[in-house]
Amino acid sequence: MWCNDSVTDEPVTLASNVPGAEFPRWGSGGLEFRIHAPAAHQVNLQLPGDSLGTGSVPFSPQADGFWHAAIADPAAGFHYYQIEIDGLTTNDPGSRTYSGYGRSVSGVEVPDPLEPFELRDVPHGELRSLWFHSTVTRSWRELWVWTPPGYDDSPDLRYPVLYLQHGSGEDETSWSRQGRAGIIMDNLLADGAVRPMLVVMGSGYAGAPPSMPMSASDSTMIIDGLQRLLTDDVITVVDQHYRTIADRRQRALAGLSMGGRQALIIGLRRPDLFGWLGGLSPAIWLSGTTDAGWSVDPGWVDDAVSAAGGVRPQQVFLSAGTREERFVTAVEQLSGSLAAAGIDYNSYVSPGTAHEWTSWRRSLTEMAPRLFRDPRTGS
Amino acid sequence: MWCNDSVTDEPVTLASNVPGAEFPRWGSGGLEFRIHAPAAHQVNLQLPGDSLGTGSVPFSPQADGFWHAAIADPAAGFHYYQIEIDGLTTNDPGSRTYSGYGRSVSGVEVPDPLEPFELRDVPHGELRSLWFHSTVTRSWRELWVWTPPGYDDSPDLRYPVLYLQHGSGEDETSWSRQGRAGIIMDNLLADGAVRPMLVVMGSGYAGAPPSMPMSASDSTMIIDGLQRLLTDDVITVVDQHYRTIADRRQRALAGLSMGGRQALIIGLRRPDLFGWLGGLSPAIWLSGTTDAGWSVDPGWVDDAVSAAGGVRPQQVFLSAGTREERFVTAVEQLSGSLAAAGIDYNSYVSPGTAHEWTSWRRSLTEMAPRLFRDPRTGS
Repeated sequence: MWCNDSVTDEPVTLASNVPGAEFPRWGSGGLEFRIHAPAAHQVNLQLPGDSLGTGSVPFSPQADGFWHAAIADPAAGFHYYQIEIDGLTTNDPGSRTYSGYGRSVSGVEVPDPLEPFELRDVPHGELRSLWFHSTVTRSWRELWVWTPPGYDDSPDLRYPVLYLQHGSGEDETSWSRQGRAGIIMDNLLADGAVRPMLVVMGSGYAGAPPSMPMSASDSTMIIDGLQRLLTDDVITVVDQHYRTIADRRQRALAGLSMGGRQALIIGLRRPDLFGWLGGLSPAIWLSGTTDAGWSVDPGWVDDAVSAAGGVRPQQVFLSAGTREERFVTAVEQLSGSLAAAGIDYNSYVSPGTAHEWTSWRRSLTEMAPRLFRDPRTGS
Repeated sequence: MWCNDSVTDEPVTLASNVPGAEFPRWGSGGLEFRIHAPAAHQVNLQLPGDSLGTGSVPFSPQADGFWHAAIADPAAGFHYYQIEIDGLTTNDPGSRTYSGYGRSVSGVEVPDPLEPFELRDVPHGELRSLWFHSTVTRSWRELWVWTPPGYDDSPDLRYPVLYLQHGSGEDETSWSRQGRAGIIMDNLLADGAVRPMLVVMGSGYAGAPPSMPMSASDSTMIIDGLQRLLTDDVITVVDQHYRTIADRRQRALAGLSMGGRQALIIGLRRPDLFGWLGGLSPAIWLSGTTDAGWSVDPGWVDDAVSAAGGVRPQQVFLSAGTREERFVTAVEQLSGSLAAAGIDYNSYVSPGTAHEWTSWRRSLTEMAPRLFRDPRTGS
């Protein structure tokens, strides 16, 4: 049964469609996919394992070599997906591709006008790409930096900086494209909800190309490599190139999933650099409880605070979606560890969402207003 | 036979590969592609019809469900390509995707260290994305703007502007990604070859989404729509948002293929706005000679100059590759029409290249140094 009043009988194409593509489309027939593959024997829709669904949905053959599939009641927001045709996992030619799963993968954006993720008629900042040569990876890398509206018109103003890390298999474009980070910040700023800040989005993979650690066994490299990249290169480049306030109280490090693990571990090691931390669906569990590959010792927060000479972050933000139970567990465990170590934290739970971008878009919307303020007064 | 000394026995992966992908790769075995499609019956490599080749190359089945294909002596530069599997035309999971053919299509970057298109250790400008709401298309659109190194450090300097249009089926990202426009400008500026300028790259499609005119029959819309978009929206947004010199002598309009047609026709109509024009492989032929859908009347340049009250551009740049004969013809015809109308022009022919990005990267490299100078003195 279809219960959403905002859906009309006329299906609409999606913001994730390539220009002119009729499918995917969304309407009273649900979320419909159509593929032209006249000689194929079997076509499947591979679902992402998030709130859109898990597993695969077979396409039905139609006339003229077309195949059709539909999801009756699709969850709003951005979802990765793939097409499997005769054993080849590939993309839907009708959709744009996004950096996920370690490659360029199809994505579908099911609209939700109730969420603050749409472009509004407010002043817009700029998303800027800057090349820099890394001394750590000995390669050219691209940083994506969101600057707030008016940045160029106020050459005497300096800004706090939020470093925002992507998840496993994603890259430096993911927060701005799938995450709509710039649009979210534009909207928050127009509502007076956040302090003007810069948002820096770089790759969390610090191996020399073409290697790219993807598995939990590379965990040390994922942490230590990014830590070196941030401390030896990225922060210096950003502080030199942009009008930042180069002070721990004006610098935040946050990330999602793998990036949340990176942000919390690196941030607790270097409270002299990062005063604010964010773990959005952070991939970090106490050893012996859930995921051995991504585990930490029970006393790890205390140990990090001791190693940092007792210096603590100003505040830590934690979040997860209700439909990603492992990450709700991670947030609960982290809350306990932070409280025991005397670290101020707050947490947010995204209703009805799984390990997916709606959780992280909402989490950014919740986290950004708390950053760079006095935790006691909020001002 | 393989004759390129720069190729070693060890194959290399390409800048166009997704992180960690082993294929495509390039070496003494040529340009090799590998696909995993265990249940497929036929897999073909679809060539782009440029200097990489035309038509399709069958993949050979290998063990474990892999398929393999190779091009013995691939032309350097960027090439679009597709994979056809059992009748479905799709992407190669090993390559990044690029906006071409009206969608997200695989691309392969065959390196050529002899060309000035590689990242060098020189000061780098920024590539900036700016949203604006168009009064013409009644939609949000994205402009990509390259700002030169030092733009933020010199708040009193103002800059000339080059508006650069993509080709048919491409979009506002194509000049920066496939075209490497920012990297080319960084290198030219480091060599002291160009005046510091801004480069604005917007979509040349001005229909309200989701419509997107693609065919020659939409020619009027392609010209008139973009003209309105530029004159009513884009130039105003750019002049308000960036430190431009808002003067025809400091404003250029150039494009490739369809975008070259747009630039020349719009620019000759509005010499009060654009002092410099560029047609790179421009899709424009005298009627009765080549392509009826993209034709113009023989006296069109004279007519445009008359309609503009006798005002002429400062200079027009024309170019084509030797292996795209129709476009060499277009340049010859245009040269005659411009000369007859008393318009200063110069032209460049790219050796050995077809209707492809190497032609346009080289053309930008040739054109940019001539812009915004006194045509008589070059200073």
